[in-house]
Amino acid sequence: MASTNPARGMRDFLPADVRKREYVIGIIKQVYESYGFEPLETPAVENIDTLMGKYGDEGNQLIFKILKRGEKLDESLETRDTSESDSGLSSPVSRLTDLALRYDLTVPLARVVANNRDKLPKFFKRYQIQPVWRADRPARGRFREFYQCDVDCIGSESMVVEAELIHAVSEVLTKLGFNDFLIRLNHRDLLIDLLTGAEVPEDRFEKTLVWLDKLDKIGQDAVVEGLESDGIDLGTAILSSSIFQAVVDYKQNDSKLNEINSFIETFLERKSTAIEKLREILKHCSVRNIKIDPSLARGLSYYTGAIMEINIDGIGSLGGGGRYDGLIGMFGKEQIPACGFSLGLERILVVMDEREMFPPEIADSRAADVMVTIWSEETIAESLKLASELRAQNLRVTVYPEADKLGKQLKYADSIKVPYVCLYGPDEIADAKPKVKNMKTGEERVFEINEISRFIKT
Amino acid sequence: MASTNPARGMRDFLPADVRKREYVIGIIKQVYESYGFEPLETPAVENIDTLMGKYGDEGNQLIFKILKRGEKLDESLETRDTSESDSGLSSPVSRLTDLALRYDLTVPLARVVANNRDKLPKFFKRYQIQPVWRADRPARGRFREFYQCDVDCIGSESMVVEAELIHAVSEVLTKLGFNDFLIRLNHRDLLIDLLTGAEVPEDRFEKTLVWLDKLDKIGQDAVVEGLESDGIDLGTAILSSSIFQAVVDYKQNDSKLNEINSFIETFLERKSTAIEKLREILKHCSVRNIKIDPSLARGLSYYTGAIMEINIDGIGSLGGGGRYDGLIGMFGKEQIPACGFSLGLERILVVMDEREMFPPEIADSRAADVMVTIWSEETIAESLKLASELRAQNLRVTVYPEADKLGKQLKYADSIKVPYVCLYGPDEIADAKPKVKNMKTGEERVFEINEISRFIKT
Repeated sequence: MASTNPARGMRDFLPADVRKREYVIGIIKQVYESYGFEPLETPAVENIDTLMGKYGDEGNQLIFKILKRGEKLDESLETRDTSESDSGLSSPVSRLTDLALRYDLTVPLARVVANNRDKLPKFFKRYQIQPVWRADRPARGRFREFYQCDVDCIGSESMVVEAELIHAVSEVLTKLGFNDFLIRLNHRDLLIDLLTGAEVPEDRFEKTLVWLDKLDKIGQDAVVEGLESDGIDLGTAILSSSIFQAVVDYKQNDSKLNEINSFIETFLERKSTAIEKLREILKHCSVRNIKIDPSLARGLSYYTGAIMEINIDGIGSLGGGGRYDGLIGMFGKEQIPACGFSLGLERILVVMDEREMFPPEIADSRAADVMVTIWSEETIAESLKLASELRAQNLRVTVYPEADKLGKQLKYADSIKVPYVCLYGPDEIADAKPKVKNMKTGEERVFEINEISRFIKT
Repeated sequence: MASTNPARGMRDFLPADVRKREYVIGIIKQVYESYGFEPLETPAVENIDTLMGKYGDEGNQLIFKILKRGEKLDESLETRDTSESDSGLSSPVSRLTDLALRYDLTVPLARVVANNRDKLPKFFKRYQIQPVWRADRPARGRFREFYQCDVDCIGSESMVVEAELIHAVSEVLTKLGFNDFLIRLNHRDLLIDLLTGAEVPEDRFEKTLVWLDKLDKIGQDAVVEGLESDGIDLGTAILSSSIFQAVVDYKQNDSKLNEINSFIETFLERKSTAIEKLREILKHCSVRNIKIDPSLARGLSYYTGAIMEINIDGIGSLGGGGRYDGLIGMFGKEQIPACGFSLGLERILVVMDEREMFPPEIADSRAADVMVTIWSEETIAESLKLASELRAQNLRVTVYPEADKLGKQLKYADSIKVPYVCLYGPDEIADAKPKVKNMKTGEERVFEINEISRFIKT
């Protein structure tokens, strides 16, 4: 017999889970819509060429790949014996598969924009809330199927876009009840200028950024050690100077940018254009929980401009994003500027659960407002009719499906936590006046049918 | 350069598409919730053993299968050479893959019920609206990724369940604006009794049902021919008698059941229990657009009791379902009765589009209620602030992201069909009174900020 568990790293969502997920998604949608972002959906399955090579070597490994079918599979299986002996692993994989599961929502967006240039407005503001799949090793809080909530603006190089994204994401989190998040802000060109100024060789930038990104997690000494183990000399003087340290207060953002600016001017003998971009973003933003953090690197390699991350102390990142002016060009003739932000639904849900942030109607959601009982086989039609009349009063009504003993029916009502039960026996049917039982107090009262909704809702 | 098209048989949904899909899904959810059904979501990816063997041979072929990864893939690739020569296609497929894409929503439901027996109530009423994937040959209206909207009640053998499902599904379609659908009703045991009575050998039942199912599409002569070509003699007498003909009017249901009953009593010398079940369902149902149709067979083999289909003349099926009391037992120790109905979202959307059934706010949906322009680089902060104040008035507000010429900004507003534009130049900013332009009439009027929402909404 097959296992009844979901596949490794995947999850079933029972009703209470779905309701929480939909509550959060509902608020995200509502806020993004209020900023003029529009919904987009793309298929779970993409041509494998669309995805391969967009997420680095590790990404390529973690993409779920779908076996070819029919004749194409037969051909692939046959060609194997002749040519495979000295080729590596990647060769049979690429010959056997033609499709793959969506790995993020940004690459599909880039594909859609390149494919629909004539149908989409000059500035395409879209949000997309869909699952993605990664063949990662499952761990606490890390799943193989998880939702991303992306919001992106395509077509403008203006820093107004970064500011609007920061405002929109902040509003989502505030509406969900978060009040202790911080927005970290940096710029890819600033990182490159800083590393160039510190004479890190260009082929070591990527590794250096990985270590820098850990500065706030593992501390300065561990980062220096890590860098040395990778043969990178960032200059302890620079690391121990305050250059890579984030500001602690919004008011220091300006002097931080000045400090970085003079560092770059000293070492590179030119200005950093990134400084001006960051100043612009700060000027446009009305939120005050935003701080310049020169150690913020963000993993993905496609970022070309501002990078952002939303953090909560002691919890980590709830999402991040940045500008990626080169990605869409990989799919089309045109380079089209783009900037976006992605919220991680799963992390948000975990924190909201721990902090009990769900409103009571979500946290204690019930299957129905009222359950209609069935007195006997003969009165089934009457009970169904009553249920339908109560539904017309905007009540959610479940019907006990069998003419069981009343005790069993009430026990079931208790088990699904329905707050009221309608008893509808021959007397009540004759008068067309159901008896309504309050399952908490046990109190029973007879009502006209058209009065039940008002009673239950108040 | 990779193609920018979605994968074969898959679709991107641009904002106008998503809004229509969400409108329909919203109504389906709301109706199912009002009947006390609760939401369930299962992963897109299942262990391959969960799916294989549940959908017949054709189904097995159409399941998208995911390539193993890492060491397990290496092992599978190595074992090949020694053992493969004389094994068929299925052997390498099953050795190379461990996961598969969800093929329907019923088998995952059965798995979830078997896996969560202690967490779920005695009667588990759930709905599930998620995509499924089938490696079918794409055709007009047939896709490789499509949504199913399922509603099922687990745990009761009562015909109240069938009646409630019929009511719920009818209410969904009525709320969507359909008024010409018909519910076809039959019972698997009735079909078996009829075929037994007609002396069709048991091993020919399945093929016979496939032909019978086509009676209303291709007519009696073609069915007889088809049956003969498969070597089945159903007895032209029986086919040309009225036995397999559906009733044309609700009032004939009862005499139809009598007619079938005497046929079965004559040939099998016993009563058909299915007749009583169907009478019960009819008795519980308050809808009148339901007809007994003895030719309705429904493809899936897991049905054990009542089977139902919703049809529109000239269009075909919008969905169907039935009782499957044996399926959950395939995953657990217990046999648990179950009955459900599945609506096909894609077909519903196509018909609603053709018939122009979407309400205007969905059919002509816009990205925003109002667009705020930007006068100059210096006034960006004021425009963003205005946008944020308008959002607080529950307007959906988009901001033009650049300090372009006003003409360009208005042209963009036109292209996204936003009905109003706020002009906010130095004079308007000084007075804190934006000028609101009606994009249809061209009329411009100055407003206090807190009056704009009321003006735009009326």
